[in-house]
Amino acid sequence: MAAVLSNSGKKLSVSIIGASGYSGAEVIKLLRFHPAVELDGLYAFSQAGRPVAELYPALGCDKVYRQYNGETDSDIYFLALPHGEALNLVPSLLKAGKTVIDLSGDFRLESTAEHETFYKQAKSADAVLTYGMPELFRAEIARSEAVSNPGCYATSIILGIAPFFRSGSRALQVQSVNCTAVSGISGAGRSSKTELSFSEMSENLRAYKVGSHQHTPEIMQALGTSATDPSFGFTFTPMIGPLVRGIYSILNVQLETPAELSTVRELYRDFYGAAPFVRVRETMTEIRHVVNTNNCDITIASVSDNGSLVIVSAIDNLLKGAAGQAVQNMNIMLGIDETTGLLL
Amino acid sequence: MAAVLSNSGKKLSVSIIGASGYSGAEVIKLLRFHPAVELDGLYAFSQAGRPVAELYPALGCDKVYRQYNGETDSDIYFLALPHGEALNLVPSLLKAGKTVIDLSGDFRLESTAEHETFYKQAKSADAVLTYGMPELFRAEIARSEAVSNPGCYATSIILGIAPFFRSGSRALQVQSVNCTAVSGISGAGRSSKTELSFSEMSENLRAYKVGSHQHTPEIMQALGTSATDPSFGFTFTPMIGPLVRGIYSILNVQLETPAELSTVRELYRDFYGAAPFVRVRETMTEIRHVVNTNNCDITIASVSDNGSLVIVSAIDNLLKGAAGQAVQNMNIMLGIDETTGLLL
Amino acid sequence: MAAVLSNSGKKLSVSIIGASGYSGAEVIKLLRFHPAVELDGLYAFSQAGRPVAELYPALGCDKVYRQYNGETDSDIYFLALPHGEALNLVPSLLKAGKTVIDLSGDFRLESTAEHETFYKQAKSADAVLTYGMPELFRAEIARSEAVSNPGCYATSIILGIAPFFRSGSRALQVQSVNCTAVSGISGAGRSSKTELSFSEMSENLRAYKVGSHQHTPEIMQALGTSATDPSFGFTFTPMIGPLVRGIYSILNVQLETPAELSTVRELYRDFYGAAPFVRVRETMTEIRHVVNTNNCDITIASVSDNGSLVIVSAIDNLLKGAAGQAVQNMNIMLGIDETTGLLL
Amino acid sequence: MAAVLSNSGKKLSVSIIGASGYSGAEVIKLLRFHPAVELDGLYAFSQAGRPVAELYPALGCDKVYRQYNGETDSDIYFLALPHGEALNLVPSLLKAGKTVIDLSGDFRLESTAEHETFYKQAKSADAVLTYGMPELFRAEIARSEAVSNPGCYATSIILGIAPFFRSGSRALQVQSVNCTAVSGISGAGRSSKTELSFSEMSENLRAYKVGSHQHTPEIMQALGTSATDPSFGFTFTPMIGPLVRGIYSILNVQLETPAELSTVRELYRDFYGAAPFVRVRETMTEIRHVVNTNNCDITIASVSDNGSLVIVSAIDNLLKGAAGQAVQNMNIMLGIDETTGLLL
Repeated sequence: MAAVLSNSGKKLSVSIIGASGYSGAEVIKLLRFHPAVELDGLYAFSQAGRPVAELYPALGCDKVYRQYNGETDSDIYFLALPHGEALNLVPSLLKAGKTVIDLSGDFRLESTAEHETFYKQAKSADAVLTYGMPELFRAEIARSEAVSNPGCYATSIILGIAPFFRSGSRALQVQSVNCTAVSGISGAGRSSKTELSFSEMSENLRAYKVGSHQHTPEIMQALGTSATDPSFGFTFTPMIGPLVRGIYSILNVQLETPAELSTVRELYRDFYGAAPFVRVRETMTEIRHVVNTNNCDITIASVSDNGSLVIVSAIDNLLKGAAGQAVQNMNIMLGIDETTGLLL
Repeated sequence: MAAVLSNSGKKLSVSIIGASGYSGAEVIKLLRFHPAVELDGLYAFSQAGRPVAELYPALGCDKVYRQYNGETDSDIYFLALPHGEALNLVPSLLKAGKTVIDLSGDFRLESTAEHETFYKQAKSADAVLTYGMPELFRAEIARSEAVSNPGCYATSIILGIAPFFRSGSRALQVQSVNCTAVSGISGAGRSSKTELSFSEMSENLRAYKVGSHQHTPEIMQALGTSATDPSFGFTFTPMIGPLVRGIYSILNVQLETPAELSTVRELYRDFYGAAPFVRVRETMTEIRHVVNTNNCDITIASVSDNGSLVIVSAIDNLLKGAAGQAVQNMNIMLGIDETTGLLL
Repeated sequence: MAAVLSNSGKKLSVSIIGASGYSGAEVIKLLRFHPAVELDGLYAFSQAGRPVAELYPALGCDKVYRQYNGETDSDIYFLALPHGEALNLVPSLLKAGKTVIDLSGDFRLESTAEHETFYKQAKSADAVLTYGMPELFRAEIARSEAVSNPGCYATSIILGIAPFFRSGSRALQVQSVNCTAVSGISGAGRSSKTELSFSEMSENLRAYKVGSHQHTPEIMQALGTSATDPSFGFTFTPMIGPLVRGIYSILNVQLETPAELSTVRELYRDFYGAAPFVRVRETMTEIRHVVNTNNCDITIASVSDNGSLVIVSAIDNLLKGAAGQAVQNMNIMLGIDETTGLLL
Repeated sequence: MAAVLSNSGKKLSVSIIGASGYSGAEVIKLLRFHPAVELDGLYAFSQAGRPVAELYPALGCDKVYRQYNGETDSDIYFLALPHGEALNLVPSLLKAGKTVIDLSGDFRLESTAEHETFYKQAKSADAVLTYGMPELFRAEIARSEAVSNPGCYATSIILGIAPFFRSGSRALQVQSVNCTAVSGISGAGRSSKTELSFSEMSENLRAYKVGSHQHTPEIMQALGTSATDPSFGFTFTPMIGPLVRGIYSILNVQLETPAELSTVRELYRDFYGAAPFVRVRETMTEIRHVVNTNNCDITIASVSDNGSLVIVSAIDNLLKGAAGQAVQNMNIMLGIDETTGLLL
C-alpha cells in the first residue's frame, strides 16, 4: 500500500513516464524538493537520450530522458502521456504492485460508450480508476493504488459548481449550466502546430470543440448527473487565448428557484471547508491570482432575482489542472499532509 | 441635410471632439484618406497644444490638438468623449445645424431611469438620438442629423443574436441568453490605471461588472426586449484579457423549441444579406480574423438537440465597435456608399 | 518594360508565387485595392486547392490557392518563397519578359562564396538582381525588369546607418557597428516549430545565429563595405521576442572622430530628404509607431563625447521589411508614385 | 551581528518597508516559507490599512499593510522603496542595531557627484553601503550590517562581464562594451503610467534613457573602471518590451587582442565556480530559462577573429535583480547557506 510504504521513513522513488511534456516537467519541478519522494526514471519517447536541461533549463535537473521498456523498479509512477498511451501501461504497473497516477483521459470515464465517442478510442469496460479529485473523493483516493487525474477544464468547472450537486443539500437545484472557459495555450501540450504558434495566437482568441469537448462527460460523471438528462442542460465552450497558463471558467448557473448570495456562498464555504486548495472569495478572481499555485479560486460574481448565477472559477491548468493535483493525490495516497510540496 | 451637403461635390469638413483617445485616433486614421471628407479641428481637453504626432506617431497626422470652445465651423462633428461630456455639447451642435455622431453612451438609452442606474448620471428624457447600428436601423440613420454610436460589447452581442429578435420571424423564440465576452484592453480607453498596466494584465483574465454592465439595457433596447421581462433571461459577463483590440462574444442561446443548424444559419444569412460588414461563417471565428477590419464575424458554433445554441460573434472594438461604425454611420447619413473608406 | 506597360491605362495583372506565407498574404492585402494592378494567380505549393479565406479570413479574398506549373500569363510576378526555391523560377519568368520582384535571399548577394556560406546553397554567379532598396538604389530599380527585395533585418539596419556610408560625405567615418535587433516572430514565417509556439515565446526573448545571420553580408554589400575589412568591425545579434510584427534595431556606431547630434541629424535628414517612408525623428522610435505602416522610423538616441552613437531604427518586418517594400519597388518599376497603395 | 543572531536557534523577525510594490511582494513570497526568519511588519505608505491579499491574492498572506512610524522591533529590515526614500530611514535602523538590506539606489554609488547627476537627488558622502553582489563581494557582505542591493540591469550586466574586470587575470583586456538590454515591464514598478499600460506595450518595444541610465555608474563602480576612462568605452541602451519579468542583456565586448571561445569560457567558469546562482552555459540563454529563479544564465554567444565577443546574460529582474538577491544577501549576512529559500 502507498500509505504503508511511506511510513518506512526512507524516501520513495518516483518515475515519470511522459516526462518531456509540460505536465511532466511540472511534476519534475514539484518533486525535486518534495520531502517524501525522490525522482528516479524520467521516461520520454521522442526525447529519449536528451538531457532534461536541454528542454527545460529552468528546472535545474541533471537527468537524461530515457526510453521506457517496462521498468517497474520505482515505488510510484506518474504517467503524463498523450491520450491512449497509458491504457496498456497501467495494468502491468498495477500488477507489479506500483502506486500509479495517470494524468491522461484514458481511465476517467466509467462509460465505455462515452469514452469511445469523445476520445475516438476503444477501451475495455474495466479501464477505470478512482477519479482523483480530492475535494470530492478524498477518502476513495486515500485507499486507492491508482488514480486517474482529472482534466484541466474539468477540474475548474467541477470545482466551480460541485457544491450544488454533491453537498447533499437539495435546496438549490440546478436547471442548467452554460460554461465558457478560456485556457492557456500550454493546455494543448508542448506542440508544434501552426495554429498554436505565437504569430497565430498573440492578441487572438479561438473557440474550439464547442459542444463536443471530451471533458463534458467527465464533468457530468463527477457531478453525478448527465448531459443527456432532459431535466438538466449543460453546454461547454472551450477557448484558447493569448496566455500560457491558467483556466478561467465562467459558469452561468440557472437555479430552479432564486437564492441569496449569502446562501450560495455559505453552501460553497461549507462544502470546501476542509479543502486546502479551494478559496471561495468575495473579490473577483483573476487568472494571475492562481498561476503558479495549486489553488482553485472561486467567486460568486452575480446573483439575479430570477435564480441566475454567474460563478467564476480559476486554476493553473498545469498545477491544479494537472501536475499539482497529481502530487496532491500522491500525498493523499501516501497518507501524508495533502499540501506537502505544494505551498508554492 | 447631411446627404444634401455631400452632393455639392466638395469635401465636407469634419471635426472630432475628444480626438486624443483611442477611438478618436481611429476616426482620424479612417478619415485621413476618406474621399468625401477632410479633417478640420481635432479637439482634446487634457492634450490641447500637443501635436497629434506626439501621441500617435503612426498616424502621420501633422495637426495639433486644440481646446474646444464651442466652434461650429465644420460640417460634421464626431464626439469621442468620456461618458457624460457630450450631453451638453450635442444640443448646441444640432441647433447650429451640424451633422453629429456621438460615440459615448450619453444618448443611447431611451429610458432615463435605466440611464441613471447604469451610468450614475442624470439626463433629460429627450437626450436620445437614433441608435447608429446600420444593420438594424439603416433607414432611420439615413434620415437623421445625429446618431448615437453603439457600445462595443453591445455591437458584438446585438449583431450576434439580432436575427432571432428582429427578423420578423417568430419561428425561433429565445428563452434566454447567457453572454460571456472578452474585450481587448483598449476598450478601457487610453488609461493610466494600475490594473490595466502590462504587468497586471499580461497572461491574465479578469471579469468585471458582472450583471451590471451599462451595455445590458442598450442590448435589450436594440433587441426590443427587456432584461426584466420575466419570460426572457439575459446575463452578461464582460472580461478583459491580454489583447489590445477585439471583442469575442460567446452567446449561449436557449430556444423555446429546438432548431436545425441549417435553419438558424439561413435565418442569419437572410437577415444580414444586405449588410456589407457582417459575415455569417461556417468556420470558427477568431479575433484575429476581424482585427483591423470593420467586420463582425459570426459563427453558429453548436446546436444541441434541446434547443441550446452557442454563437460566436467577433469585432474589432475600436472599428466596428467604435470608430469604424461611426464612419459607416456618417457614410449612410451622407448618402454615399456605406463601405467608403472602410475596406481596410 | 514595366513602366511602359503601366501607361496603357488598363490595370496590370499580378501573380504571387508563394502566396500562402505571411509575406505573400501581405502582398495580397496591399494589392487588393491597388489602383494600378489586379490580382491574378495566387500560387502556393502545400496549400494548393485551399481557399485563401480559409488561411486568412481577414483578407476578404475569394480566390483559391493553385499549384504553380510555369504559368507566365500575368504581367508582374511576386515570389515569396522559402530561400532556394526562386532560383529556378526567376530565369524563365525573365525570359518570358515578365516584371519580377523576388522576396527571398536567392538573388541578393553578389558574392557566390558568401551566398554559399550563409545560405548553405549553391547558386550561379549571375544569379543576382538589382537590390530593391529604393532609398539607396531608386534609379537602378526604375530601369530594372527584376529586383531582389531586401531582407527584413537588413532593411532596418541598412537604413539605420546608410547615411554614414553612402552619403558621399566622408566627414563621419565609421569604425565599428554593433547591432542588436529584436524581430517579431512572424519573421520566422508561417511555421509549426515548437520553439515558435505561443507557450515557448510568450514573455520570452531568444538570441540566435549570433554572428552568423545571412543578412550580414547583405548589409555589408549594400553599405559598400565588408565584414572582413580589418578597418571596420561589425557584429549582429538577432533576437526574437514576444511580438508578431516589427523589427527594432539598436545600432551602436563608433565614429572615428566625435560629432555633434545636430551634424548627424542633418546628415540623415539630407540623405533621406526625398524618401517618403523614412522618418528621422527627434522623439524615441517605438515598434508600435511603425507597425502596419511602410515606414522606417529612425532616432539618433545618444551621442557621446568619444564618438559613440546609439541609433534606433524600426520597421514593420512584413511591410517595409517585405511586402510593403516589394510593392514600393513595383511602383517605382511601373513609373507611378512610389507611395501608391502604401499610405495605410 | 546578523550571523550571531541567527545562531540562537529561534527564527529572526523580518519587516519590509515598502512591501506593496512588486519587489516587496517578492520578498514576502520568498520569506513566507524561509526556515530562518518569520515575517513581521509589512509597511506600505499609500496602501496602509489594506490587506496584502487584496493587492496580491496569490501570495496567500493574511497580513495588513501598515504605516511605518519608525518601528525598530524586528531583527532585519528590507527596504523596497522608491529612490530617495530610504536615505533617511537607514541611518536610524543602523543606529538601532538592525540588519538592513536596501533595494533602492540610495546607497549604491560611492561618488556623490555621480549620484546627484544620475538620481537628481542630493545625498551625503557617507551614504554608501556594502554593494550586495555576492559573486563579487561575498566576504564583505558576510561581515556587513547593511547592504545596498544592486540594480536589476546592473546585476545582469555586471555578472555578464565581471570576469574580464575582476578575475585578476589581465590576459583579456576589454576595450569597449556596448550593452543593449530588454527589461520586463515590472522593472518600472507597480505603476499607473499610461505608457506602461497593456494597450501601449503589447507588441511594442521602447528604448529609453539611452546613455543616461542611473545603472551606468553603478556598473562602472562594481567593475572597478569608469565610463569616463578614455581607454574604455561603455554604452548602455535599456529597453522595455512586452514581457512582465526578466532582463536580457546583449553585451558586445571588444577585447584588446582576440581570444578563443574556450579561453573565455574557462575564465568565466573559474570566476563563477563557487557561485550557486550563475550558470555559464553552452546553449543559448533565454529569458524563460531564468524567470522565477534566482539564476543568472550566461552564454558566450559569438567570438570573432578580431576580438569581438557577444555575451548574453539573463536574470529575473524581480529575483536575482531584486528580491532574490536581497534574500541571498540576507542569508550570507546570517551565516547560513546562501541558497536557503531560493531553490525555487
